[in-house]
Amino acid sequence: MAAPADNLYLALVHYPVMNRKNMEIGSALTNMDLHDIARACRTFGVRGYYVVTPFEDQVELADQIIRHWTHGKGGELNPSRKEALEMIRVTRTFEQALEEIEKKDNREVVTIATSARDSGDCITPRELKTRLKNNASHVLAFGTAWGLTEGFIDSCNLRLAPINGPGAYNHLSVRSAASIYLDRITND
Amino acid sequence: MAAPADNLYLALVHYPVMNRKNMEIGSALTNMDLHDIARACRTFGVRGYYVVTPFEDQVELADQIIRHWTHGKGGELNPSRKEALEMIRVTRTFEQALEEIEKKDNREVVTIATSARDSGDCITPRELKTRLKNNASHVLAFGTAWGLTEGFIDSCNLRLAPINGPGAYNHLSVRSAASIYLDRITND
Repeated sequence: MAAPADNLYLALVHYPVMNRKNMEIGSALTNMDLHDIARACRTFGVRGYYVVTPFEDQVELADQIIRHWTHGKGGELNPSRKEALEMIRVTRTFEQALEEIEKKDNREVVTIATSARDSGDCITPRELKTRLKNNASHVLAFGTAWGLTEGFIDSCNLRLAPINGPGAYNHLSVRSAASIYLDRITND
Repeated sequence: MAAPADNLYLALVHYPVMNRKNMEIGSALTNMDLHDIARACRTFGVRGYYVVTPFEDQVELADQIIRHWTHGKGGELNPSRKEALEMIRVTRTFEQALEEIEKKDNREVVTIATSARDSGDCITPRELKTRLKNNASHVLAFGTAWGLTEGFIDSCNLRLAPINGPGAYNHLSVRSAASIYLDRITND
């Protein structure tokens, strides 16, 4: 039986992230990231989903997509998609998302970075599940493109262990990774 | 530690599936389904990924996408994407996929349907993991659009239990569902 993750938030970060040449960039919005991750958040009882982008045109694009599915024709045709996309909040920075959560919940906010790169200093999804029983809000941050920068990861309170298969290949989409982590964190 | 799923195949079915009015249809190809599910299959050590569509223009579209990433510019720029997309085979029917697998592996092929709808007669991912130790090939079938028809599901040997969260909402994308099932089936 799954436990609701009602003190867990998810943030999808478009800056600062890496490109395939290991350079720090700001990435473009991907429509499917909004849909797939919102649907997974809604399924697993996550409290809210923040889409973080500093670019004004991308903020406007995200708002247009969300409006179409929450107030437009999309939501009328597909109410379950409406239920998912109305969880999304768009902020210019990660800090702005944290401020909103802190203001809303009025308690400590713990930040957890995700990465496909291994590191000695990670907690497991099972450990995070136990930590969620604490009286704090938690934000799980995902990087788009080639992932969050090490600087961003270091600035978070915790780092989650990567999802591995039997081999060395670990190039999951951010949509797959977010879905798998939410399943692991909320289900037994 | 994850076990390689080297006698497990995945099939993404575009016909026969349901639309939101519960009518049987053939659905259109979604580019992201090819990428995300191939990347998850490659990560979790799945043996092969079949994309099933009866429509000639969709077969051609799938072939073009796969060629771009396996023989074209895409694969040069992104070798890990090449490694994922070269796992894909396109067939006109599910039966054709089964015939290919049977011919290649020269042993029994067990078919397992997935669905977001609950049913009394399901096996769990854990039970499927145990079954994978048998000397048989297994094909896990996913429906696009609103999912596989009950007729298709009934024609399969087994049916996998749906992925549920704490509430009634269970509208995961097929990309999320495939990723979560593969994680559950291969990881402890």
